[in-house]
Amino acid sequence: MLPTQEKWFSEVCQDAGSALSWRIETQLARQTTDFQTIEIFQTADWGKLMVIDGFVMLTTRDNFLYHEMLTHPALFSHPNPQTVVIIGGGDCGTLKEVLGHFTVTSCVQVEIDETVTRLAEQHFPELCVRNGDPRATLLFDDGLAYIKNVAPGSADVIIVDSTDPIGPAEGRFGPGFVADCFAALADGGILVQQSESPLLHQHIIGAVRANMSRAGFADIRTLGFPQPCYPSGWWSATLARKGGFLEAPDPERFDHSGIKTRYYNPGVHLGALATQLP
Amino acid sequence: MLPTQEKWFSEVCQDAGSALSWRIETQLARQTTDFQTIEIFQTADWGKLMVIDGFVMLTTRDNFLYHEMLTHPALFSHPNPQTVVIIGGGDCGTLKEVLGHFTVTSCVQVEIDETVTRLAEQHFPELCVRNGDPRATLLFDDGLAYIKNVAPGSADVIIVDSTDPIGPAEGRFGPGFVADCFAALADGGILVQQSESPLLHQHIIGAVRANMSRAGFADIRTLGFPQPCYPSGWWSATLARKGGFLEAPDPERFDHSGIKTRYYNPGVHLGALATQLP
Repeated sequence: MLPTQEKWFSEVCQDAGSALSWRIETQLARQTTDFQTIEIFQTADWGKLMVIDGFVMLTTRDNFLYHEMLTHPALFSHPNPQTVVIIGGGDCGTLKEVLGHFTVTSCVQVEIDETVTRLAEQHFPELCVRNGDPRATLLFDDGLAYIKNVAPGSADVIIVDSTDPIGPAEGRFGPGFVADCFAALADGGILVQQSESPLLHQHIIGAVRANMSRAGFADIRTLGFPQPCYPSGWWSATLARKGGFLEAPDPERFDHSGIKTRYYNPGVHLGALATQLP
Repeated sequence: MLPTQEKWFSEVCQDAGSALSWRIETQLARQTTDFQTIEIFQTADWGKLMVIDGFVMLTTRDNFLYHEMLTHPALFSHPNPQTVVIIGGGDCGTLKEVLGHFTVTSCVQVEIDETVTRLAEQHFPELCVRNGDPRATLLFDDGLAYIKNVAPGSADVIIVDSTDPIGPAEGRFGPGFVADCFAALADGGILVQQSESPLLHQHIIGAVRANMSRAGFADIRTLGFPQPCYPSGWWSATLARKGGFLEAPDPERFDHSGIKTRYYNPGVHLGALATQLP
């Protein structure tokens, strides 16, 4: 009955006593960099699968959920998002969604590991279609240092599209980084951070929210959404605004944006704002 | 890296090329009835796990999502739900949620396999706390025959809380059954049916909706919600009203209902109504 090691990739979530598996046809790539080991698999039914240090990052089939929900609630909560910074996000799926907003004049993606992006260009080309957009800047550098040194008040939206809060991404969940984000944001700016599972990781969500509160953010909201390839299949993004409240989505603005989505819409956005932690 | 057969229970979703696993401490029960084989496991981190014919039915940890979302959107979409019928639902979690509504004067649960309920009383007692409510009737009989023979126009809400559309539950996804539900409902009555994963089972959702449309239902809406123990962790309920539109949830009515939930609220309900199929 159990998947055999030859044909399946499994991620065991040790803390949660659960595991997710995908039927695998072949391994397409495996590269060990200065930072981590990145693997790409061809699955039977989920397209391609990217794994970093044994943790699933994304699949072709379901990444739209995560990328849309990390991007659009934040950008549509801001009245006029022009300058956007992405910390992490090397697969470029978030960058693609951000550049769908015509208000955006500049989007800087700061990914520490260039190999993630090079592998994404090869295996997830549909996520990289806007990498050549003149508004896009792809930096391969330390996101924490970037945010610390960027001009204060220069970003309208900062998106923290990081891996789990262990290993190289640990600092991105710390209070110092969140305070640096606060300083980097313009007044009314919005920080959004992926914040793990509402069912399994309430302690992490609590810490993310506490850091935001301590940094001075006013309105802090955790939005839930489905994400099948992550533990529990239920994931979250936590949004916070520097001064003022997060604006409710405006259906007319969404319609006029011309943005095509498969999951996000203003009604889904409102529903996600109503997420309560169980 | 892979879970070993001794310590894990895995459900492989063959069609989707994915699997879900839970760390198991011990098997608490295994009974083969005239209808199916029912197993109860003690998991390490998800409380108890009920499995029927190899398919996960529920866990202690996450069943609140399914039971709340199968019940409350339907009952709060009806102006005054009094008579409710549950087809299936032998674990009694849906019954418990229904009887939280003080408008309800009668709730009949028609489960074909009494052993499911007896095992639930033993292993999921928190779901069975309202089984002795004077408004509750627990029948152990064929739900299809019950709906065919019940007085026409006698139910305000019918909840189809069935297993997957294979084996004994197959008929509950057929056009004849849906037409019988239509006849059994009073004018303005609401049918709700669990309708599988928005990501993996769009063909099933399409068939459920087509059957409802053919039976004469006016307003048909598919609501998505997280359900970690089912394939993809993203599940759906499809609602349909006999005459008229499904009413939007009224926050004041919810507040006055006194119903305590861990996931459902009027905002989440509105968001679920905005579900689009990817």
